[in-house]
Amino acid sequence: MQRLPTTLGLLAALLLSAQTEALAAAPAGAGPVLFKDAGPGSIRADYPLFAGERQRLEALVGAARRAGIDVPVPKDPGGGFSHEQHKRNYMALYGAGLLYRITGDGAYADYARRLLLEYAKLYPTLGPHPAASGDSPGRLFWQSLNDSVWLVYAIQGYDAIRDTLSAEDRQTIDDQVFRPMAAFLSEGQPQVFELIHNHATWACAAVGMTGYVLRDDELVARALNGLDKSGRTGFLRQVDQLFSPDGYYTEGPYYQRYALMPFVVFAQAIDANEPARKIFDYRDGVLLKAIRSTVQLSQGGYLFPLNDALRDKSLRTDELYQAIAIGYAATRDPAFLSVARWQGRTTLTPEGLLVARDLAEGKEQPFPFASRLFRDGPQGDRGAVAVLRAGPGERDQVLVVKNSAQGMGHGHFDKLGWMLYDEGAAVVTDYGSARFLNVESKDGGRYLKENQSWARQTVAHNTLVVNETSHFDGQWKVGEKTAPRQLFFSADGPTRVSTAEMDGAYPGVRFRRTLAQLTIEGLASPVVVDLLRVQGSKPAQYDRPLHYAGHLTAVGFPLQSNPAQRPVLGSANGYQHLWVDATGTPQAGNATLTWLNGQRFYTYRLLPPAGAKIILAESGANDPHFNLRREPVLIERLENATEATFVAVLEPHGLYDPDAETVSDSRSRIAALRHVRAADADVVSLELLDGRTLTLAIADDADAAKAHRAEIDGRPLAWSGHVGRFDEPAARETRSEMASRERR
Amino acid sequence: MQRLPTTLGLLAALLLSAQTEALAAAPAGAGPVLFKDAGPGSIRADYPLFAGERQRLEALVGAARRAGIDVPVPKDPGGGFSHEQHKRNYMALYGAGLLYRITGDGAYADYARRLLLEYAKLYPTLGPHPAASGDSPGRLFWQSLNDSVWLVYAIQGYDAIRDTLSAEDRQTIDDQVFRPMAAFLSEGQPQVFELIHNHATWACAAVGMTGYVLRDDELVARALNGLDKSGRTGFLRQVDQLFSPDGYYTEGPYYQRYALMPFVVFAQAIDANEPARKIFDYRDGVLLKAIRSTVQLSQGGYLFPLNDALRDKSLRTDELYQAIAIGYAATRDPAFLSVARWQGRTTLTPEGLLVARDLAEGKEQPFPFASRLFRDGPQGDRGAVAVLRAGPGERDQVLVVKNSAQGMGHGHFDKLGWMLYDEGAAVVTDYGSARFLNVESKDGGRYLKENQSWARQTVAHNTLVVNETSHFDGQWKVGEKTAPRQLFFSADGPTRVSTAEMDGAYPGVRFRRTLAQLTIEGLASPVVVDLLRVQGSKPAQYDRPLHYAGHLTAVGFPLQSNPAQRPVLGSANGYQHLWVDATGTPQAGNATLTWLNGQRFYTYRLLPPAGAKIILAESGANDPHFNLRREPVLIERLENATEATFVAVLEPHGLYDPDAETVSDSRSRIAALRHVRAADADVVSLELLDGRTLTLAIADDADAAKAHRAEIDGRPLAWSGHVGRFDEPAARETRSEMASRERR
Repeated sequence: MQRLPTTLGLLAALLLSAQTEALAAAPAGAGPVLFKDAGPGSIRADYPLFAGERQRLEALVGAARRAGIDVPVPKDPGGGFSHEQHKRNYMALYGAGLLYRITGDGAYADYARRLLLEYAKLYPTLGPHPAASGDSPGRLFWQSLNDSVWLVYAIQGYDAIRDTLSAEDRQTIDDQVFRPMAAFLSEGQPQVFELIHNHATWACAAVGMTGYVLRDDELVARALNGLDKSGRTGFLRQVDQLFSPDGYYTEGPYYQRYALMPFVVFAQAIDANEPARKIFDYRDGVLLKAIRSTVQLSQGGYLFPLNDALRDKSLRTDELYQAIAIGYAATRDPAFLSVARWQGRTTLTPEGLLVARDLAEGKEQPFPFASRLFRDGPQGDRGAVAVLRAGPGERDQVLVVKNSAQGMGHGHFDKLGWMLYDEGAAVVTDYGSARFLNVESKDGGRYLKENQSWARQTVAHNTLVVNETSHFDGQWKVGEKTAPRQLFFSADGPTRVSTAEMDGAYPGVRFRRTLAQLTIEGLASPVVVDLLRVQGSKPAQYDRPLHYAGHLTAVGFPLQSNPAQRPVLGSANGYQHLWVDATGTPQAGNATLTWLNGQRFYTYRLLPPAGAKIILAESGANDPHFNLRREPVLIERLENATEATFVAVLEPHGLYDPDAETVSDSRSRIAALRHVRAADADVVSLELLDGRTLTLAIADDADAAKAHRAEIDGRPLAWSGHVGRFDEPAARETRSEMASRERR
Repeated sequence: MQRLPTTLGLLAALLLSAQTEALAAAPAGAGPVLFKDAGPGSIRADYPLFAGERQRLEALVGAARRAGIDVPVPKDPGGGFSHEQHKRNYMALYGAGLLYRITGDGAYADYARRLLLEYAKLYPTLGPHPAASGDSPGRLFWQSLNDSVWLVYAIQGYDAIRDTLSAEDRQTIDDQVFRPMAAFLSEGQPQVFELIHNHATWACAAVGMTGYVLRDDELVARALNGLDKSGRTGFLRQVDQLFSPDGYYTEGPYYQRYALMPFVVFAQAIDANEPARKIFDYRDGVLLKAIRSTVQLSQGGYLFPLNDALRDKSLRTDELYQAIAIGYAATRDPAFLSVARWQGRTTLTPEGLLVARDLAEGKEQPFPFASRLFRDGPQGDRGAVAVLRAGPGERDQVLVVKNSAQGMGHGHFDKLGWMLYDEGAAVVTDYGSARFLNVESKDGGRYLKENQSWARQTVAHNTLVVNETSHFDGQWKVGEKTAPRQLFFSADGPTRVSTAEMDGAYPGVRFRRTLAQLTIEGLASPVVVDLLRVQGSKPAQYDRPLHYAGHLTAVGFPLQSNPAQRPVLGSANGYQHLWVDATGTPQAGNATLTWLNGQRFYTYRLLPPAGAKIILAESGANDPHFNLRREPVLIERLENATEATFVAVLEPHGLYDPDAETVSDSRSRIAALRHVRAADADVVSLELLDGRTLTLAIADDADAAKAHRAEIDGRPLAWSGHVGRFDEPAARETRSEMASRERR
């Protein structure tokens, strides 16, 4: 990851090369410190992305101006009028400021001035928000986080027009709006400001940028190094603590996207005002890594919905327009340009201008989506998110394994869980969060109580549940103490593997999981092998849920159905939300379920331990307010077990073509699945319908140098390292047998 | 609708203008009669759509040739190997024939010859298909319909290469394949061939085209006028009987699309061989009207899923590639070109060449989607499908009202039912059919038994159910006898209205329904008003279901929920498939339900008659094989009623923007809904939140000349004709009241 040292110089050259106009007479010391242009009206670029952005902001600010200045007394929770109006106001302020810089049109500056003077009347009168809940009430908004966001945007708008103000107006706005806000968000709420948490990052960015604009070193120092300036808290400490060495943010992709904006925007402000800090090189360039990893943690433009996350959250979001533009300006990595194209947006800043120009000049390169391990924790030793990709395309299969740490209060209890995308769709799913963001009728748009009772619980995920309780008994602060161990990760070639182990999610229970993505010649998409070994200290009930998307088309074993009265599966920890459609007790030979998703079939094939049963269920029980989506899940259940090995294979196959009205390969291409336990390894073998056999040997030891031996069906296997793979062609006679079987 | 009389002449000119090569020496009388080119190898066009089609067919035929000739003994039902292989074979034959004509490459002709010689060995040995079910077994396929389809494609392929064969091969194939097939499909199954039904149309087309190719006038005469050549049955009678004067096919859009292909392909063959018949002018050009109406009966490219229909069926289907190309060649209507562009496909025929050329030359015009009434029945007097469109775009709102006749055996019991598309999505839905086409594990891909027990039943639709029984007691042959009456249809301006009446769906019950689509200034999308009046002869239970798509976000009235044990709503006629989530007894002021679909909110606002209750339910009960999709429905229920008026309004509003994380107008913009019954009219009035009032007066009489008077809230109304609309601006004081209410 390289960074061009001369970013600012190049920006300046770009700007000077733009058509310039007479600089407005700026009062000494009042000019912009965040927006480095050649003076108001100096940017006149017509690159489509930039021109589009300008039009959009002109429309937004125009509408705000036409609606008239409206600074209501704070009253409503998320989605309510006062909430939305204050959001509209910060966007209008931000937009008016940028448009003033670009166009030089003083009307924008005047509008911003008048709006801020209204805030100068209102703000000093405010106490805690009347609709506040939780321990961090805001003043303009129900939670102070939104106040920080308001300030991050508004200070940028203010910076852009501050040099147009009379000294009196400037002082009024400095002293009645921005200084008290910065005070409130820092010393006024140490319980937020001193956290190592994204809420605190927003607060630090808001306070620090305000410090630069107001030329207030004290605010900047607080923002960088905490209220006591010791460095124990503050922005730099957050950069140290909240990102792993791979640029992974511990709360997961959804909040990484959100957190990224104050990190990169404040970093940009630091770089502009204190270039000697070399903030983009800080910690081996971790902020730039964080931008890239956010993009890597998405598929088809949508972020993996791990932890509290909305499934509809994509890279098309303000935070990432900023991050991509700032990242591009800092690196000139042409892969960022293809992200900007997908976004269809950029920022109306010198960095956005660079993006728009270089995109227009055809410098774009595809973003290099690849299999990657994203280690978690400041030292990279608190687990990881493993991403295995069959290819870089948005329809290529992606296996996401969540071996990361708890992720703080928004973390879900899903150690060693997984999800799968295939053909551009999520096929093994994560519910995400139970929330309708900003929909007032849904608890004011906040997290719903079903987020706690369902979405965070282990049974709502694709991992082991012991005795119908969640990992760490559902207590995130306990979960923070213990992370999984990523034992092995290999992303090369046709056999991509992640192995991790979790000890401590349940007392006395250790479990280890290998998930492998196997590319097999002749099969449309890779096959996923799941090997989950559990070692407990006393007999318990083990559940392995699989949440899938699609419509069941075939079940290989007999079911006992509940067609007219569906019981609820359990009473707590998420189980109270599951209706039981049917149960069955499959044998090794018939433990298959096939569903159709889009145009592809998926067969999940298990090797159930003796006595295991399958529960087919659906979410939506005990949900009187219709807060949950209703989605299917299948649960493999083993009762009264101490040690157990769960083996399963998920196989995409076939094509359902509604246009041509043809269907091919609606049945699995796998004839049999076998598993044997060797002395120091597990061996999983797939026999394909065409007679080929594919064997995966997984040693207990992850040491790359160690040699292993095992035997399956009388055949000896020998390999070195954690994983061995053995592909055998079909025997001649078997092939013809298979051919006739296919016709049967 | 104009048709160019010189189609064939123009085609010939086009083809002669193409680069020509030496004509292959064609034996006298053996040359193509269906494919009018200038000889093999004479078509060398590089227009993208045509070149793409050629590549596609080359790939398809290439794969078939590489796989080797495989003509299996018929054995499997839909989706099974022999079924799919015979389908592959007819496509390969068809493709090889066309490619031979285009390329002049004799290898294609030879492949077709060898494949047909295999059929010549197999076919004479065949009796009824071993997996047959129903009363029309095929020989190659489980139902003879598929045999007809095989023949329609294969005869075209054969026609294209027949002049390359030795006299001996030609006679072998004529006599061992095509003549016996034509005999089987006509005199061999009079119970199909003499129907007035799409299965018979396929059979007639197959037999008639075979007649032209074999120069067998007897087969042609049978195809056109029935086995006895009286005209009592046969193709011409089918054209008379199966389309209405508006080109509506009585089974509905899904089967219209399917039926269209034999109609247009055979018509094209008739036109080529017997131009004096002027088949495209027959019955005022009804075949061309039928092509256009098929397209009109779609939204966003997907056919309205009325009757037995798959929701995923679009205009991208072989039948419509053929129909659009043939329709374009016959009319040069440039609107067909935009359909072809959406399809991304055409036919590899002279007609497809025309389409590809004119599309490449930029002659395309948008298809003129518009509000239209599609009358049903040969005389246009058996009801209608009313389509009300807010605009021609694919995101414009479309209201579809099903006032058509039963539609034979694939008809659903849903007189006066409706559905709605808004913002490109179905919001008030029709389940379509319960079927997984060609998915072998789902009953061989046939209609599932849930198609009868759920999908066809009245409660699965958006119309009146009396005493939990379906219209006509669920007997389609009874339903065939009685059609609704379309009393009024007006598609002009901002007030688009359909009124229809049904008498005889239930003994002693008559019901009349007005559905109006009202464009209201300032509202994003039109509001739908539903007025349903029922007159019964004795007390009964009336249910008005509304099947909606989306997630409930707000319910205005208290609910009694069934959170942990959901009862099944009833025991038969579809009610056995509904789980009851909750019930409630709303008042006039609070009878609202709001859901979110995509980025828009929808509020359904009722005026429940006294004592009416609302049932919130979901499909999926008594479905042990997971054959049903699980979808929500709300049912307005009135017990022990004789006369009743049901009034409701469906209002799209607001925006949920997950990218910007903003929500606007998540609450309804309507403050109140009122209804009064006047002497000879119903008056429905909407008060908007901004104080405006909008009143719709609907007279019992549809006479355009008659004058009416009514009064609401002391205000007199006067209008002429069936519908009057009265928009009143907000009073000054009301507006400010409303403004403050908005802020509340």
